[in-house]
Parts: sequence; structure tokens; C-alpha cells
Amino acid sequence: MPSLAPPQLTDVAVKVERRLTDLVAEQSGVWASFDGRLAEAVDELGSVLSSGGKRLRAAFCYWGWHGRRHGPGGGLGFGSPCDESVVVDAGAAFELLQAFALIHDDIMDDSATRRGRPTVHVSQARRLTAEGWQGEARRFGEGVAILVGDLSHAYADQLMGSAPDAARRIWDELRIELNLGQYLDLRSAAAGQLDGDTALRVSTFKSALYTIVRPLQLGASLDGPAGEGLLALLERYGRPLGRAFQLRDDLLGVLGDEVTIGKPVGDDLREGKPTELAAVAIDRADPAQARLLAGIGRRDLSAGDVAAIVGVLQDTGAVGEINNRITGLVSEAIDVAADLPFDHESKGALVALAEYVAARNS
Amino acid sequence: MPSLAPPQLTDVAVKVERRLTDLVAEQSGVWASFDGRLAEAVDELGSVLSSGGKRLRAAFCYWGWHGRRHGPGGGLGFGSPCDESVVVDAGAAFELLQAFALIHDDIMDDSATRRGRPTVHVSQARRLTAEGWQGEARRFGEGVAILVGDLSHAYADQLMGSAPDAARRIWDELRIELNLGQYLDLRSAAAGQLDGDTALRVSTFKSALYTIVRPLQLGASLDGPAGEGLLALLERYGRPLGRAFQLRDDLLGVLGDEVTIGKPVGDDLREGKPTELAAVAIDRADPAQARLLAGIGRRDLSAGDVAAIVGVLQDTGAVGEINNRITGLVSEAIDVAADLPFDHESKGALVALAEYVAARNS
Repeated sequence: MPSLAPPQLTDVAVKVERRLTDLVAEQSGVWASFDGRLAEAVDELGSVLSSGGKRLRAAFCYWGWHGRRHGPGGGLGFGSPCDESVVVDAGAAFELLQAFALIHDDIMDDSATRRGRPTVHVSQARRLTAEGWQGEARRFGEGVAILVGDLSHAYADQLMGSAPDAARRIWDELRIELNLGQYLDLRSAAAGQLDGDTALRVSTFKSALYTIVRPLQLGASLDGPAGEGLLALLERYGRPLGRAFQLRDDLLGVLGDEVTIGKPVGDDLREGKPTELAAVAIDRADPAQARLLAGIGRRDLSAGDVAAIVGVLQDTGAVGEINNRITGLVSEAIDVAADLPFDHESKGALVALAEYVAARNS
Repeated sequence: MPSLAPPQLTDVAVKVERRLTDLVAEQSGVWASFDGRLAEAVDELGSVLSSGGKRLRAAFCYWGWHGRRHGPGGGLGFGSPCDESVVVDAGAAFELLQAFALIHDDIMDDSATRRGRPTVHVSQARRLTAEGWQGEARRFGEGVAILVGDLSHAYADQLMGSAPDAARRIWDELRIELNLGQYLDLRSAAAGQLDGDTALRVSTFKSALYTIVRPLQLGASLDGPAGEGLLALLERYGRPLGRAFQLRDDLLGVLGDEVTIGKPVGDDLREGKPTELAAVAIDRADPAQARLLAGIGRRDLSAGDVAAIVGVLQDTGAVGEINNRITGLVSEAIDVAADLPFDHESKGALVALAEYVAARNS
């Protein structure tokens, strides 16, 4: 399976990134004309947006729209066909929502880097110190990061404003799911609830629904309300694929290349995130291995502690089991893609995206 | 001027609070049926919403709608009249947005209490300790508070979903203004920029536009796009009144009754918020008074330090000057209210609200 982003992802990314760049430039100009200090918050968001990202949600949204529009049922026989600019705006809205979620997540996890650069709360805390300003650097950095995230949320919503009601209803739902999924993640990590059911539930909200199912369904609703049958089929594709996406993320978090993934390996273990990977290992561990796994969730794990836990994840066969699950889940999603009432090109895109999601190395 | 809330405020508040209670009960039930842990976040938001609040923004939104609908121009001769449920939903959306803003502000300011109860980040930090969970209590508390705020923002937007496009455009704009105003507030406090221009700029974004002008304009757009003339008149009413609102807030923050205002007196001084009150005192201070005022922005001010600074605010005549400004600004707003193309009842409501905003003791 290919680990490089397919053109069906990168072509959408180019359009969406242009939209984001234009928005930031326009807004930065508007606010700078009032007061240069106001534009700083917009520019900080611009740095986050231009630092990369796979633009997966924008791509699923685009192909959901394209597939329905050009499928045998035809998007043009009902509803009111939207301009492509509405599709690009919706894709850009997903990327702004993702920036909002990551900026806030990084505060909650106290992540130092993201996509290879310092996170917003860390760089803003350093700014207070460098400027010699008053107050606590940590609180200032986190405060600015909260606001930059909130600003991104507001812009996301503004861009989704041209979407029809059916699409906006999905947009409202997915934001509630995203926040509640993140709450469950945070709370389960704190309470040390590392069971497989909890891991799967968090992954359903944060990966399956937010990353794949809802962007596809929303895209398929941009020409007007999609039928229940189509929405259900898209969910049948997105649920297993979203779970595979999360499983790959979990593997990258402990086995990935730090430079490629843009964040420190081992942080997921220190945060004690509930993952299927950890749950399988805990199930299979002998007493000595179980003692090592009990370190998951300790913020002060050394590099050696992390390496020992990773060893247990491998020795128990948990890593192999998760790889097998990924293979099975992706093939399940690809089978559903074949059944979609979409044109050939869109089905091909969903197959290519599924293979990429499962095999990516960042 | 009356310091008790007038019926034009409390009657709207009753309807909006019923809507909020219904929303929380419904959502808590839906999510509890998936996983009881998910409902905890909804219930925490419910506690914030039910802990009071003046519901000012909901009232301005309501009277903006009522005035245009029943005014001599008539809301019914153009646009498409909306149901009263849309007006109540919009008012409830404003209260959810306000809850979002307060929950996030309280993290940035590290406020311990709000409306007489512990703030979300403080009570959630205590929860981690009480449960014996792992991780840092402060980070967990702030993380949950960020999420509960984000959830409130998402629900706010969902409730605004039934409003027409013209109203939604104002909604998008005011959220950007709110976040940028808060950024300027935070950044100016850190940088020690306590000048009157900065104070007025922050107050324009956070109080005049967010609290009064935009709710009124949005309400007046619920039956369809309002003309530029009406929007400008509403702004001429809301700008001076919003400034008066902020000036009263600043006075209450140093002279108010701690129990009535629901937060510790002196916190505004410790945070070093740019206020017109401080700016006037700084302008008028002699060298000895200036030395005392230089303590503004120090987190470790004792009760005695606070009392000494408050003494300077009074002795320099800054308190008197701010009271004079409030009187002038409110009378300016009331004069504009008389010119509005609204029915008699709505104009009376805007006069009553203006008097209350200027005289309130909490």
C-alpha cells in the first residue's frame, strides 16, 4: 500500500490551501488597519494553517460531493447544484476546524511541537518571556492559544455559511461529537481507563465520525439533502476506515519517525491515551510485562521506559495484531466503496484515500 | 436610575432560560444513552448556564427584533417574518456564546469564582484530585474547561442555525470581534499598555459591539436583512451604551460588593486590565500616587495594596470622572432610542435597559 499522498488528496489540498491563504491575508489586512495588535492573532493562526497537514477531511468532503454529483443517480436531478467554490469553502472550513481542535488539544496534552514547529501555547509563552512582559508565561501562552483556536473555530463556521441547511446540520453534529470524543479521551486518560471499549469509542468519535464519515456525508449534502441510504453507505465505508486511521496513528505514535510525524515519540504513552494497541497488550501481558505497561500514563517516562513499553507492545504481538486489524478494516472499507452509487473516478479516489490512510508514515 | 433588572429583561430571560434547560436535558439524555461519561461534559455546561447571568444579549436581540417587527416601517412589509421560536433560539445562542466566552476567560484570568460558584477549570481540577486520578490537576481542569467552552460554542451555533443569512453574517462577525477584542485585552494587560485608547478599543469590541450593537442588529435582521440606516442607528445607540456598560463593570470590579458581583474585588487590578478608570487615574496622579498605581498588573497584590490603589482611584477624581462619563453616555444612548423607527413598547424597553446597564450593582 502506498505511503505517499495520492493526487486525489493533494489536488484538493492545493485548492483548499489557496482559500486559506487568501482568507488569512484578507483578514490580517482588515484588522491591521484598525490596530496592528489585532492582526497578530490572525497571523498566528496563519502560521498554523501554513505549517502543513494532510487535508484529509477536505478531501473526503470533496469526493463525497463529487461522487454524488457525477454518480449514476446524478446530483443534478434534485436539490440545487452548488458552485465548486462552496465545496472548496467547506473543505477549508474542515481544515480551520482541525486547526482549532489541534491548537486546543496541544494545550490539553502540553505538546511541545506539532508538524515540526513549536505549538502555539509554547511559542506564545516564550514570547511573553522574550518581551519581558508581566504575568505567568504558561498562562499567557495557553490563553493566546485558546483564543487563536476559538478564532479558527469562528472562521470555520463563517466559511461553512454558504453551505445549504442539510450540510450545516451535519456540521453542527460533528462539532458536538468532536468535543465530546475529546472529553472522553481526556477523562479516560486521567482515570486510567485503558480498556478496548473506551479506546474504540473515542476512536469512533474522533477518527471515524469526525475525520471520515461526517466530511463525506457533508460533501454529499452540498447539492441538497442526501438520502438515508447514501448516508448509511458512506458511514459503512467511513467507520472501519476511521478505526484503521486511528490504529495507524497509534502505531505511528510509538513506532514512527519523530521527524516525519512532527511530534515526540512516546508522548501518547505519557498521556495515557486509551488505544486498542495498549488494550491488546494489556490483555496478553504476563506479570512482568504488565508491570511495564502499568507505566502508561506517567508523564515522567524516560526514553528508556518508553523503549521498554514499546518492546512489550511488540513482544506480546499487539503491534502485529493491530497491523492485521488495519488490513482487514481497510479491505472492508474498499469493498463498500465499490458499492457506492458514485462515478468511477470518485470511487477510485475513495479507494486511493483508504489505502493511503492505512499506510501513511506521518 | 434603577439597579434592579426591568421586566423587559427578565421576561425575555425566562423564555431563553427555558430553552437552555430543555436543550441541556435533551442533549444530556441523548449522550448518556451512549456512554454516561459523555453526558458529564453536557451537565457541566448545564451548571454554568443555570448559575445565573443577566441575559442582556438575549434581551437586546429580542427588542431589536420586536422593534423592527412592530415599528412604523413594519417588519411584515418585507423579508419573511420568523416565528418567535427563532428569536428565542437566537437569544439562547447568545447566552451559550457568553457561557463559552466566560469559561475560556476564566481560564485566561485564572478566576476562582464566577457568579458565586467555583469556575469550571477550578472545580474540574479539584475533581481530578478528589478522584485520585493521574496527571496534573491544573492541566486537567483547564483542559475540561476548554472543551466545555468549545461545546457551548458549538451549541450556540446550532441554535443560530434557524436564523436567516443576514442574521448569521452578523453572528459570524461578532464572534471574530469578540475573540480579537479578548486577545487585545490579554496582550495589553501582559504588555502593561494601560492607556485610554487601548482601554476604549477593548471596550468597543467586548462590550459595545458584542454585548449591545450586534445583538440588536442581529435581532433586527431575524425577519430578513435590515437597511443600512437602521443598522447605523442601532450602532449609535449601542456604542455609547456599551462603553457605559464597560465603565460600570470597571467600577464594580474595584468598588462592588463581592457577594453581589460573584467574583473577588481587586482581580481586575491584579490582571492589569486596560480600563478607562485606570487611564484617568494615571493621567492625574502625582508621583506618590503614580507609584501606587504602578502596582496594577501585579498578581500578588494584597488586600491592602488593592485598597491603596482604590484610594488613589478615588482621590484623583477618576471614580467621579467615570461616573460622569457613564451619565453622559447613557443619556446619549437614550436620545438615540427616541429616534428609532420602533414601536413605543420597544423604545421604552431600550430606555429601561440603558438605565439598568448604567446603574446595575452586579
